[in-house]
Amino acid sequence: MSKSIFYHAGCPVCISAEHDIVDLVGKYNVEIVNIGVVRDRISEAEKAGVKSVPALVTPNGNALHLNFGASMDDVKG
Amino acid sequence: MSKSIFYHAGCPVCISAEHDIVDLVGKYNVEIVNIGVVRDRISEAEKAGVKSVPALVTPNGNALHLNFGASMDDVKG
Repeated sequence: MSKSIFYHAGCPVCISAEHDIVDLVGKYNVEIVNIGVVRDRISEAEKAGVKSVPALVTPNGNALHLNFGASMDDVKG
Repeated sequence: MSKSIFYHAGCPVCISAEHDIVDLVGKYNVEIVNIGVVRDRISEAEKAGVKSVPALVTPNGNALHLNFGASMDDVKG
């Protein structure tokens, strides 16, 4: 199985969702990317359809927004 | 591992997210509940913190709202 990618920005909602996703899918099946820090991956997230964080992009390319931590505009500041 | 519960109401956003979640966590690890049909489980979903569908309640009791299909008020109609 390809990996999912979990994009977050370090917010409390993000961290809580990150723990849930790692528990659910297993840590080896998901790459965790903090786009608040790794800012050159913001555009990749946006291209995948991420509108807010936290969000999970599945191996087949669907963006699942999990609860709501911050908009991409907030992340971009 | 305890099962997660995926609550939905049959909407297109719900069905898409259902496929993603089943692919991610495995069909034996998640119970799918259509609260548009099984209406006596609406209150159970609300008690678990579900504010909109589709939503996944994890084995440790966290409600993860996945994208947005319909509010609970819409579901209750």
